[in-house]
Amino acid sequence: MDLASYITGFVDGEGCFCVSFNYRAKFATKVEVRPSFSISQNRLSLSALQKVQKFFGCGSIRFSNRDRTYKFEVRSINDLIQFIIPHFVRFPLITAKKNDFDKFVKICEYIHKNWHLNRDYLIQIIEWAYQMNLSGKKKYPKEFLLKLLAR
Amino acid sequence: MDLASYITGFVDGEGCFCVSFNYRAKFATKVEVRPSFSISQNRLSLSALQKVQKFFGCGSIRFSNRDRTYKFEVRSINDLIQFIIPHFVRFPLITAKKNDFDKFVKICEYIHKNWHLNRDYLIQIIEWAYQMNLSGKKKYPKEFLLKLLAR
Repeated sequence: MDLASYITGFVDGEGCFCVSFNYRAKFATKVEVRPSFSISQNRLSLSALQKVQKFFGCGSIRFSNRDRTYKFEVRSINDLIQFIIPHFVRFPLITAKKNDFDKFVKICEYIHKNWHLNRDYLIQIIEWAYQMNLSGKKKYPKEFLLKLLAR
Repeated sequence: MDLASYITGFVDGEGCFCVSFNYRAKFATKVEVRPSFSISQNRLSLSALQKVQKFFGCGSIRFSNRDRTYKFEVRSINDLIQFIIPHFVRFPLITAKKNDFDKFVKICEYIHKNWHLNRDYLIQIIEWAYQMNLSGKKKYPKEFLLKLLAR
Protein backbone atom coordinates (compact mmCIF):
# COMPACT_ATOMS: atom_id res chain seq x y z
CA MET A 1 0.00 0.00 0.00
CA ASP A 2 1.22 3.48 -0.88
CA LEU A 3 0.18 5.60 2.11
CA ALA A 4 0.55 8.90 0.22
CA SER A 5 -1.94 7.80 -2.45
CA TYR A 6 -4.23 6.31 0.22
CA ILE A 7 -4.31 9.65 2.01
CA THR A 8 -5.26 11.55 -1.13
CA GLY A 9 -8.14 9.11 -1.64
CA PHE A 10 -9.22 9.38 1.98
CA VAL A 11 -9.14 13.18 1.85
CA ASP A 12 -11.05 13.18 -1.44
CA GLY A 13 -13.81 11.50 0.56
CA GLU A 14 -13.55 12.95 4.04
CA GLY A 15 -11.22 15.96 3.98
CA CYS A 16 -12.13 19.62 4.10
CA PHE A 17 -10.21 22.61 2.78
CA CYS A 18 -11.90 25.51 4.51
CA VAL A 19 -11.45 29.25 4.85
CA SER A 20 -13.34 31.02 7.62
CA PHE A 21 -13.61 34.67 8.57
CA ASN A 22 -14.01 36.55 11.84
CA TYR A 23 -14.87 40.14 12.58
CA ARG A 24 -11.97 41.74 14.50
CA ALA A 25 -12.52 45.35 15.53
CA LYS A 26 -8.80 45.85 16.20
CA PHE A 27 -7.66 44.66 12.76
CA ALA A 28 -6.93 47.36 10.19
CA THR A 29 -9.09 45.44 7.72
CA LYS A 30 -11.61 44.43 10.46
CA VAL A 31 -11.56 40.94 8.97
CA GLU A 32 -9.51 37.96 10.11
CA VAL A 33 -9.06 35.13 7.60
CA ARG A 34 -8.33 31.59 8.77
CA PRO A 35 -7.55 28.73 6.40
CA SER A 36 -7.67 25.17 7.70
CA PHE A 37 -7.36 21.63 6.45
CA SER A 38 -9.28 19.01 8.42
CA ILE A 39 -10.62 15.46 8.49
CA SER A 40 -13.31 14.30 10.92
CA GLN A 41 -13.95 10.74 12.07
CA ASN A 42 -15.82 9.05 14.86
CA ARG A 43 -14.01 7.50 17.84
CA LEU A 44 -13.73 4.08 16.22
CA SER A 45 -11.57 5.54 13.46
CA LEU A 46 -9.37 7.76 15.64
CA SER A 47 -6.34 5.62 14.78
CA ALA A 48 -6.77 6.48 11.09
CA LEU A 49 -6.52 10.19 11.99
CA GLN A 50 -3.39 9.46 14.00
CA LYS A 51 -1.84 7.79 10.93
CA VAL A 52 -2.68 10.87 8.85
CA GLN A 53 -1.18 13.19 11.49
CA LYS A 54 2.01 11.13 11.61
CA PHE A 55 2.20 11.12 7.81
CA PHE A 56 1.97 14.90 7.52
CA GLY A 57 4.08 15.54 10.63
CA CYS A 58 1.92 18.50 11.65
CA GLY A 59 -1.55 19.44 12.87
CA SER A 60 -3.51 18.44 15.94
CA ILE A 61 -6.36 16.09 16.79
CA ARG A 62 -9.16 17.25 19.06
CA PHE A 63 -12.59 16.07 20.08
CA SER A 64 -15.52 18.15 18.92
CA ASN A 65 -18.36 18.08 21.41
CA ARG A 66 -20.68 19.64 18.87
CA ASP A 67 -20.82 16.69 16.48
CA ARG A 68 -19.18 14.04 18.74
CA THR A 69 -16.33 13.43 16.30
CA TYR A 70 -12.56 13.69 16.35
CA LYS A 71 -11.02 16.21 14.03
CA PHE A 72 -7.48 16.28 12.64
CA GLU A 73 -6.78 19.89 11.79
CA VAL A 74 -3.92 21.97 10.37
CA ARG A 75 -4.30 25.72 10.85
CA SER A 76 -0.71 26.97 10.76
CA ILE A 77 -0.12 28.77 7.48
CA ASN A 78 3.49 27.59 7.48
CA ASP A 79 2.43 23.94 7.89
CA LEU A 80 -0.22 24.33 5.20
CA ILE A 81 2.34 25.78 2.77
CA GLN A 82 5.18 23.43 3.70
CA PHE A 83 3.44 20.07 4.27
CA ILE A 84 -0.21 19.97 3.21
CA ILE A 85 -0.33 21.77 -0.13
CA PRO A 86 2.76 20.09 -1.65
CA HIS A 87 1.29 16.66 -0.90
CA PHE A 88 -1.88 17.35 -2.90
CA VAL A 89 0.11 18.90 -5.73
CA ARG A 90 2.15 15.70 -6.01
CA PHE A 91 -0.81 13.34 -5.37
CA PRO A 92 -3.78 15.22 -6.85
CA LEU A 93 -7.42 14.94 -5.74
CA ILE A 94 -9.78 13.62 -8.43
CA THR A 95 -13.25 14.61 -7.16
CA ALA A 96 -14.84 18.07 -7.23
CA LYS A 97 -12.89 18.75 -4.02
CA LYS A 98 -9.99 19.51 -6.35
CA ASN A 99 -11.74 22.82 -7.20
CA ASP A 100 -11.85 23.74 -3.50
CA PHE A 101 -8.21 22.79 -3.13
CA ASP A 102 -7.14 24.98 -6.07
CA LYS A 103 -8.79 28.03 -4.49
CA PHE A 104 -7.40 27.07 -1.09
CA VAL A 105 -3.87 27.10 -2.52
CA LYS A 106 -4.29 30.58 -3.98
CA ILE A 107 -5.68 31.88 -0.68
CA CYS A 108 -2.87 30.30 1.38
CA GLU A 109 -0.24 31.74 -0.95
CA TYR A 110 -1.75 35.23 -0.52
CA ILE A 111 -1.79 34.84 3.27
CA HIS A 112 1.73 33.45 3.34
CA LYS A 113 2.89 36.62 1.55
CA ASN A 114 0.84 38.71 4.02
CA TRP A 115 -1.27 40.04 1.18
CA HIS A 116 -4.43 39.43 3.23
CA LEU A 117 -3.52 42.59 5.17
CA ASN A 118 -4.22 44.50 2.00
CA ARG A 119 -7.85 45.39 1.40
CA ASP A 120 -7.92 44.62 -2.33
CA TYR A 121 -6.24 41.24 -1.96
CA LEU A 122 -8.52 40.39 0.96
CA ILE A 123 -11.56 41.07 -1.21
CA GLN A 124 -10.16 38.60 -3.74
CA ILE A 125 -9.63 36.06 -0.93
CA ILE A 126 -13.25 36.48 0.17
CA GLU A 127 -14.48 35.97 -3.39
CA TRP A 128 -12.52 32.72 -3.74
CA ALA A 129 -13.53 31.47 -0.28
CA TYR A 130 -17.23 31.94 -1.01
CA GLN A 131 -16.88 29.83 -4.15
CA MET A 132 -15.62 26.91 -1.99
CA ASN A 133 -17.55 24.19 -0.12
CA LEU A 134 -20.82 25.30 -1.63
CA SER A 135 -22.84 22.90 0.48
CA GLY A 136 -21.21 24.16 3.69
CA LYS A 137 -22.24 26.96 5.98
CA LYS A 138 -20.45 30.28 6.38
CA LYS A 139 -20.58 32.32 9.56
CA TYR A 140 -21.23 35.61 7.75
CA PRO A 141 -22.88 36.44 4.42
CA LYS A 142 -20.24 37.53 1.91
CA GLU A 143 -21.85 40.96 1.67
CA PHE A 144 -21.23 41.57 5.37
CA LEU A 145 -17.48 41.04 4.96
CA LEU A 146 -17.27 43.14 1.82
CA LYS A 147 -19.12 45.94 3.59
CA LEU A 148 -16.50 45.93 6.36
CA LEU A 149 -13.87 46.39 3.69
CA ALA A 150 -15.67 49.16 1.82
CA ARG A 151 -13.76 52.45 1.80
CA MET B 1 -0.01 8.22 -7.73
CA ASP B 2 -0.89 4.60 -7.02
CA LEU B 3 -4.57 4.33 -8.02
CA ALA B 4 -5.13 1.11 -6.04
CA SER B 5 -4.05 2.77 -2.78
CA TYR B 6 -6.00 5.93 -3.66
CA ILE B 7 -9.16 3.85 -4.10
CA THR B 8 -8.76 2.16 -0.73
CA GLY B 9 -8.46 5.61 0.86
CA PHE B 10 -11.46 6.95 -1.06
CA VAL B 11 -13.56 3.94 -0.07
CA ASP B 12 -12.45 4.25 3.56
CA GLY B 13 -14.11 7.67 3.39
CA GLU B 14 -17.03 7.27 1.02
CA GLY B 15 -17.58 3.57 0.35
CA CYS B 16 -20.28 1.31 1.76
CA PHE B 17 -20.25 -2.44 2.25
CA CYS B 18 -23.90 -3.24 2.76
CA VAL B 19 -26.08 -6.30 3.16
CA SER B 20 -29.83 -5.85 2.76
CA PHE B 21 -32.72 -8.27 3.14
CA ASN B 22 -36.09 -8.64 1.46
CA TYR B 23 -39.13 -10.70 2.34
CA ARG B 24 -39.82 -13.16 -0.48
CA ALA B 25 -42.89 -15.34 -0.01
CA LYS B 26 -41.73 -17.77 -2.71
CA PHE B 27 -38.28 -18.39 -1.21
CA ALA B 28 -37.92 -21.52 0.91
CA THR B 29 -36.30 -19.37 3.60
CA LYS B 30 -38.70 -16.45 2.91
CA VAL B 31 -35.66 -14.16 3.13
CA GLU B 32 -33.58 -12.83 0.24
CA VAL B 33 -30.10 -11.53 1.13
CA ARG B 34 -28.36 -8.98 -1.09
CA PRO B 35 -24.80 -7.82 -0.54
CA SER B 36 -23.58 -4.70 -2.33
CA PHE B 37 -20.54 -2.47 -2.49
CA SER B 38 -21.22 1.16 -3.38
CA ILE B 39 -19.84 4.70 -3.47
CA SER B 40 -22.05 7.78 -3.85
CA GLN B 41 -20.99 11.18 -5.17
CA ASN B 42 -22.71 14.27 -6.47
CA ARG B 43 -22.75 15.11 -10.18
CA LEU B 44 -19.55 17.18 -10.02
CA SER B 45 -17.59 14.09 -8.98
CA LEU B 46 -19.16 11.64 -11.42
CA SER B 47 -15.83 11.28 -13.24
CA ALA B 48 -14.23 9.97 -10.03
CA LEU B 49 -16.85 7.19 -9.93
CA GLN B 50 -16.12 6.38 -13.57
CA LYS B 51 -12.42 6.00 -12.69
CA VAL B 52 -13.35 3.62 -9.87
CA GLN B 53 -15.63 1.60 -12.17
CA LYS B 54 -12.88 1.33 -14.79
CA PHE B 55 -10.38 0.29 -12.12
CA PHE B 56 -12.53 -2.55 -10.80
CA GLY B 57 -13.82 -3.54 -14.26
CA CYS B 58 -17.29 -4.28 -12.94
CA GLY B 59 -20.36 -2.65 -11.40
CA SER B 60 -22.69 0.05 -12.69
CA ILE B 61 -23.29 3.75 -12.10
CA ARG B 62 -26.80 5.07 -11.73
CA PHE B 63 -28.49 8.26 -10.60
CA SER B 64 -30.47 8.11 -7.39
CA ASN B 65 -33.42 10.46 -7.49
CA ARG B 66 -33.93 10.03 -3.74
CA ASP B 67 -30.73 11.78 -2.64
CA ARG B 68 -29.76 13.40 -5.99
CA THR B 69 -26.41 11.56 -6.14
CA TYR B 70 -24.71 9.15 -8.48
CA LYS B 71 -23.95 5.72 -7.12
CA PHE B 72 -21.34 3.25 -8.29
CA GLU B 73 -22.58 -0.16 -7.22
CA VAL B 74 -21.47 -3.79 -7.45
CA ARG B 75 -24.19 -6.33 -6.62
CA SER B 76 -23.07 -9.45 -8.52
CA ILE B 77 -21.75 -11.98 -6.02
CA ASN B 78 -19.22 -13.20 -8.58
CA ASP B 79 -17.89 -9.68 -9.13
CA LEU B 80 -17.74 -9.07 -5.38
CA ILE B 81 -15.77 -12.29 -4.85
CA GLN B 82 -13.55 -11.93 -7.89
CA PHE B 83 -12.80 -8.19 -8.06
CA ILE B 84 -13.91 -6.21 -5.01
CA ILE B 85 -12.93 -8.36 -2.02
CA PRO B 86 -9.42 -9.27 -3.28
CA HIS B 87 -8.63 -5.58 -3.74
CA PHE B 88 -9.36 -4.72 -0.11
CA VAL B 89 -7.48 -7.79 1.11
CA ARG B 90 -4.40 -6.60 -0.77
CA PHE B 91 -4.91 -2.88 0.03
CA PRO B 92 -6.58 -2.93 3.47
CA LEU B 93 -8.93 -0.30 4.85
CA ILE B 94 -7.67 1.44 8.00
CA THR B 95 -10.81 3.05 9.49
CA ALA B 96 -13.60 1.30 11.42
CA LYS B 97 -15.04 0.44 7.99
CA LYS B 98 -12.55 -2.44 8.07
CA ASN B 99 -14.85 -4.16 10.61
CA ASP B 100 -17.78 -3.89 8.20
CA PHE B 101 -15.61 -5.21 5.40
CA ASP B 102 -14.52 -8.26 7.43
CA LYS B 103 -18.14 -9.23 8.07
CA PHE B 104 -19.02 -8.48 4.45
CA VAL B 105 -16.35 -10.95 3.29
CA LYS B 106 -17.70 -13.73 5.49
CA ILE B 107 -21.26 -13.09 4.26
CA CYS B 108 -20.21 -13.02 0.58
CA GLU B 109 -18.27 -16.26 1.01
CA TYR B 110 -21.34 -17.95 2.51
CA ILE B 111 -23.53 -16.67 -0.35
CA HIS B 112 -20.98 -17.68 -2.98
CA LYS B 113 -21.14 -21.25 -1.58
CA ASN B 114 -24.97 -21.04 -1.61
CA TRP B 115 -25.03 -21.52 2.14
CA HIS B 116 -27.55 -18.67 2.48
CA LEU B 117 -30.18 -21.13 1.26
CA ASN B 118 -29.68 -22.98 4.51
CA ARG B 119 -31.64 -21.66 7.45
CA ASP B 120 -28.88 -21.94 10.06
CA TYR B 121 -26.26 -20.26 7.89
CA LEU B 122 -28.76 -17.54 6.96
CA ILE B 123 -29.31 -16.79 10.65
CA GLN B 124 -25.54 -16.35 11.01
CA ILE B 125 -25.55 -14.01 7.98
CA ILE B 126 -28.32 -11.93 9.54
CA GLU B 127 -26.39 -11.69 12.83
CA TRP B 128 -23.27 -10.44 11.04
CA ALA B 129 -25.22 -8.02 8.82
CA TYR B 130 -26.90 -6.39 11.80
CA GLN B 131 -23.49 -5.73 13.37
CA MET B 132 -22.51 -3.71 10.26
CA ASN B 133 -23.06 -0.01 9.39
CA LEU B 134 -24.38 0.68 12.86
CA SER B 135 -25.32 4.24 11.99
CA GLY B 136 -27.28 3.12 8.90
CA LYS B 137 -30.90 2.14 8.57
CA LYS B 138 -32.19 -1.38 7.96
CA LYS B 139 -35.47 -2.08 6.19
CA TYR B 140 -36.60 -4.65 8.78
CA PRO B 141 -35.82 -5.14 12.47
CA LYS B 142 -33.54 -8.17 12.93
CA GLU B 143 -36.24 -9.91 14.97
CA PHE B 144 -38.64 -9.82 12.01
CA LEU B 145 -36.18 -11.74 9.82
CA LEU B 146 -35.31 -14.24 12.54
CA LYS B 147 -39.02 -14.87 13.09
CA LEU B 148 -39.46 -15.70 9.39
CA LEU B 149 -36.71 -18.29 9.83
CA ALA B 150 -38.09 -19.79 13.05
CA ARG B 151 -39.01 -23.47 12.68
